[in-house]
Amino acid sequence: MRVPEILLIQSEHKPGSLAKILQAIGETGLVVEHLNAVRRDQDQTVWEVTLEMDENVDYGLYERIDALPNAKLLGKSDRVFDRHRGGKIMMVTRTRIETLQQLRDIYTPGVARVCLAIRKNPEEVWEYTNLRRTVGIITNGTAILGLGDIGPRAGLPVMEGKAALMAKFVGLSGIPVLLDAKEPAQIIETVKRIAPSFGAIQLEDIAAPVCFEVEDALRDALDMPLMHDDQHGTAVVTLAALLSATQRTGHEIEHSVIGQVGLGAAGIGIARLLIAYGVKNVVGTDLNPNAVKRLESMGGKGGSLEDVMRQADIVIATTGKRGLIKPEMVQKDQLILALSNPEPEIEAGDALAQGAAFAADGRSINNFLGFPGLFRGALDAEAKRFTDAMFFAAANKLAELAVGHDLVPDSLDIKVHEQVAKAVCEAAKSSGACD
Amino acid sequence: MRVPEILLIQSEHKPGSLAKILQAIGETGLVVEHLNAVRRDQDQTVWEVTLEMDENVDYGLYERIDALPNAKLLGKSDRVFDRHRGGKIMMVTRTRIETLQQLRDIYTPGVARVCLAIRKNPEEVWEYTNLRRTVGIITNGTAILGLGDIGPRAGLPVMEGKAALMAKFVGLSGIPVLLDAKEPAQIIETVKRIAPSFGAIQLEDIAAPVCFEVEDALRDALDMPLMHDDQHGTAVVTLAALLSATQRTGHEIEHSVIGQVGLGAAGIGIARLLIAYGVKNVVGTDLNPNAVKRLESMGGKGGSLEDVMRQADIVIATTGKRGLIKPEMVQKDQLILALSNPEPEIEAGDALAQGAAFAADGRSINNFLGFPGLFRGALDAEAKRFTDAMFFAAANKLAELAVGHDLVPDSLDIKVHEQVAKAVCEAAKSSGACD
Repeated sequence: MRVPEILLIQSEHKPGSLAKILQAIGETGLVVEHLNAVRRDQDQTVWEVTLEMDENVDYGLYERIDALPNAKLLGKSDRVFDRHRGGKIMMVTRTRIETLQQLRDIYTPGVARVCLAIRKNPEEVWEYTNLRRTVGIITNGTAILGLGDIGPRAGLPVMEGKAALMAKFVGLSGIPVLLDAKEPAQIIETVKRIAPSFGAIQLEDIAAPVCFEVEDALRDALDMPLMHDDQHGTAVVTLAALLSATQRTGHEIEHSVIGQVGLGAAGIGIARLLIAYGVKNVVGTDLNPNAVKRLESMGGKGGSLEDVMRQADIVIATTGKRGLIKPEMVQKDQLILALSNPEPEIEAGDALAQGAAFAADGRSINNFLGFPGLFRGALDAEAKRFTDAMFFAAANKLAELAVGHDLVPDSLDIKVHEQVAKAVCEAAKSSGACD
Repeated sequence: MRVPEILLIQSEHKPGSLAKILQAIGETGLVVEHLNAVRRDQDQTVWEVTLEMDENVDYGLYERIDALPNAKLLGKSDRVFDRHRGGKIMMVTRTRIETLQQLRDIYTPGVARVCLAIRKNPEEVWEYTNLRRTVGIITNGTAILGLGDIGPRAGLPVMEGKAALMAKFVGLSGIPVLLDAKEPAQIIETVKRIAPSFGAIQLEDIAAPVCFEVEDALRDALDMPLMHDDQHGTAVVTLAALLSATQRTGHEIEHSVIGQVGLGAAGIGIARLLIAYGVKNVVGTDLNPNAVKRLESMGGKGGSLEDVMRQADIVIATTGKRGLIKPEMVQKDQLILALSNPEPEIEAGDALAQGAAFAADGRSINNFLGFPGLFRGALDAEAKRFTDAMFFAAANKLAELAVGHDLVPDSLDIKVHEQVAKAVCEAAKSSGACD
């Protein structure tokens, strides 16, 4: 895996010192991504040099630098870890607490009156607390990214990442909840018992098939928007990308044969949403026969990888297995989305070389485009559940906002998230999600 | 209950208009707490007038104002509710998310490396997440303030208040968790299952006797600082106040007879801490015979209210019952802390008039002085539990910082909380709380 490395290198403040350091770096085949002077002591300068290095390769770089007469490697840091130090989120107060009067208003004795008002009229909790902006981000750590069952605490950086994105892009308070529970019944019971804490719940990185049972039971039991992001968030962004791509290739989604390679949480979520959208023909493959049965129970068909690749007009791969799709499997005019991150089932260039009409990978199709607007829109509408109409509204809005060659819009544009939220809110109100 | 009311009153911009309004207010017996002009339209001015009114009294104020020829009551607002609107806390991101590189570092794909590092070395979760600053504030809503079992969501304003204070005064992220569970076994199981989410846990406003069983079981099961604030936070601040008061009256705590009126969570917590501190004689009373038995099992004695008042050198009342202690029950030279909020078991003035050496009520003894520093100190020390040494350290520090006539220091002084945290941290390290 390529990782950013930031080296701190001290050089004598003499003509040519820095050039020699950069030359030593260049000789290893590495490219300087960023460079700046961080300190100047007497006749020495400390440079911060950012490189992208492969973790598994020994470049001999450190030895080369230390061998230079006028340079010394002081240390190195790692930008990704630096950005995580101390965590990515924090709780803050929205009110001023500077005077005794303010304290007595927001804490005892004043707060008692607000509690009693909510006791009398439970709806007032939405007005006088942060509940309408609070989303539980709940995982048991069994399917963190493509890393598998690494445990809930090892998954916390992902949950904090989701919460950071919710805070920054749609003003929601995401609350990471790490569950020490693997049995569906335990998970369901625990989430039900803590559900009053939240205005909405995002289930996250819970492995299939447990995620299906858990989500179904909780959607039935709880009167609030709840979704397993790995299924529905990913499905929404994938549908958006498909809408964009088919507009270019001339495929018609509803009448295309969709081939799904991989039927885990993401694959099943995508199949479910596409069938709900009107797709008649979904054929899928998975090493796990129960996953295939699940697709069949939804109206799809099972088959081998070769079957799927032969029949499909549109291929969607979500296996986490790099290079699973061999170039020779690609059919002419196929549309291929190989979504596994960080490394796709087939490189887009290889697929296009085999005659695919269109090919893209997961780097450009990030579920971060979906969940913030979905939750903000659902909460703004005071929705009691997510409906497919809300998912379609988000996908349509994302496709509509895509510009140029991109299948989806810029995920760092706050306006995109605001517009998704608005579309979801309207769809919630008109699709009975608030009743 | 006296509540702040903010009236919006429009008056003609003429000499004497405002005076007439204030005269009408004065005639009702109300005092103007604050006054300012909020708008000036043509020949009209809108004044915002703050009064403290008793909810249950009809002052005839609104009629008086409307009867004035040049004034009109436009509306009123309520400062306490205004300060709660939209909630008192919010989650924010601590990192910048403006460029694609930043996004890729804090979310996929970069975050995967941090997850794997924690998977490999679980201790790293403390370095690369906000866990070391995260405190679960967990309630089931069965004993919210003095209001009783009003349910978890009606208790949320209190939990948000605690979280707001933690954020502002010691930089901790308090996470309100509202439990839909009343049976001890359910509460214990649920908290154990969500415990990985937190660095420490504050149980809050859970009714006695469930709170005792729940806390004991969770302290045994979990390897993190955990306490029921109603017991130990209150006990710490009460001990601090006693240390200050006895220094003035010449009582010796250890050799005094402590009389406890009320043996709920707070009363039992105070008795436990005082006995641990070295008090030999605690005599207590409660309407519930099981509460008295609990005190006896800890080494105290039970008795009637009259017995307690007759024998005690120091009286601590935590019943929530206004006026329970009659003036004639007070003994000469007694030290009396009547802690129920907002209205004490006996007014300090009445107790002093009967010859008490010292008397104070709960307004000056706020548990907000305890919990922020206790949790910050425990987390800074990487403590695995709270020890009595930590509670004593906090109480001693609070007594030490009290100035002038006050029993405890100013709760709004951030330095006070910092110093409590420091004292608790040191006590944790030297008392085996980190092993």
